[in-house]
Amino acid sequence: MQQQISVITLGIDDLSRSRRFYTEGFGWTPVFENAEIVFYQMNGLMLGTWLKPGLTTDSGVVPSGTGGFALAHNVPAQADVEPAIEQLVKAGGAVVRKADAPEHGGFRGYVSDPDGHLWEIAWNPAWTIDAQGHVTFGV
Amino acid sequence: MQQQISVITLGIDDLSRSRRFYTEGFGWTPVFENAEIVFYQMNGLMLGTWLKPGLTTDSGVVPSGTGGFALAHNVPAQADVEPAIEQLVKAGGAVVRKADAPEHGGFRGYVSDPDGHLWEIAWNPAWTIDAQGHVTFGV
Repeated sequence: MQQQISVITLGIDDLSRSRRFYTEGFGWTPVFENAEIVFYQMNGLMLGTWLKPGLTTDSGVVPSGTGGFALAHNVPAQADVEPAIEQLVKAGGAVVRKADAPEHGGFRGYVSDPDGHLWEIAWNPAWTIDAQGHVTFGV
Repeated sequence: MQQQISVITLGIDDLSRSRRFYTEGFGWTPVFENAEIVFYQMNGLMLGTWLKPGLTTDSGVVPSGTGGFALAHNVPAQADVEPAIEQLVKAGGAVVRKADAPEHGGFRGYVSDPDGHLWEIAWNPAWTIDAQGHVTFGV
């Protein structure tokens, strides 16, 4: 199968609260929205924020806990990490880990979105991000 | 901030069990691996499968439950959905929802990976997937 992820769908409790986080915090523009889901066109894939009953009915899985996963948004420079985290917090996010330098290099902090989904905001000098936002592995 | 997700990191319990699911089930090739993480270069972003203690130490969040999220892999044709699910099950996945047609169109089923992370395998005729695997929203 093609080495491809088409969608990340996050279950949410409140559409407008979540929309505020993604549009005002990250500054992203929805490509589609209705009364139960908002889609954002991302870098080669879609991000969907879907009211939990919709995702539960569709998948048959009742959401619980944190799930043990994280999404990351990489920024161009180390100095961009903390302002990005501050902006996300202003839009309804919560700091989970203040930004610092991990052993494996770079600089990062963690924020949870209003539904508890984990976002790492990172500067990773080894990974290339092109103008279209496509991220390429590097060491 | 750029409309971009750099990484999806999934917390896992067993590296070789997870690796088998992604390499033999999806047929994907790692771009990097060591004793605690495997990275796959995806369509404009990275997928990382990281032993849970690493992700927990890095983020400060102890994984629990299902988390209320799903990843999706879209296939080119309706007839590709069921064989893909069968292949994932052979590689250690479990069927969560047998493939059928949702109200919003297309055809899809759900499989959980060996660590319980949810994958929707879908045919969505409205969304374009190019040769590089970049997925574009369409209605």
